[in-house]
Amino acid sequence: MKAHVYVTLKRGILDPAGKAVLSSLESLGYKGISQVRIGKYMEIDIEGRSKDEAEKDIKDMCERLLANTTIEDYSFEMDDK
Amino acid sequence: MKAHVYVTLKRGILDPAGKAVLSSLESLGYKGISQVRIGKYMEIDIEGRSKDEAEKDIKDMCERLLANTTIEDYSFEMDDK
Repeated sequence: MKAHVYVTLKRGILDPAGKAVLSSLESLGYKGISQVRIGKYMEIDIEGRSKDEAEKDIKDMCERLLANTTIEDYSFEMDDK
Repeated sequence: MKAHVYVTLKRGILDPAGKAVLSSLESLGYKGISQVRIGKYMEIDIEGRSKDEAEKDIKDMCERLLANTTIEDYSFEMDDK
């Protein structure tokens, strides 16, 4: 089973890396871009756990390690393949 | 319009950050995790372009700046909201 985890900065938290990418894209000539926000995407392979157990584990991992919940939000999807 | 862009390391490319997270998760007591791969997730807001133009731009941005296509794959979804 594979978990797809998305970690993004909360609304209102400054994203200097996103601003740098926005500025680079403008320098390259792209028009109409109003904002770039950069987050993390993680794929976690889990074996030998039920879907419910794996979901519970992933939520717990996000809270404890994968996201800094003071400034970041997280979401995830489980993929049975 | 918002583009959701996912950049991941190609299969076979070593991911030391993923290995470090895997090792931390094991130290925290999680069982059954066989692999962690870490990628980037970007949200790009685009205004005043048609969906076709925006998709073409995003693909081009991925090739030129957002992904290093020697070692990374990318994918994206457009969101009309």
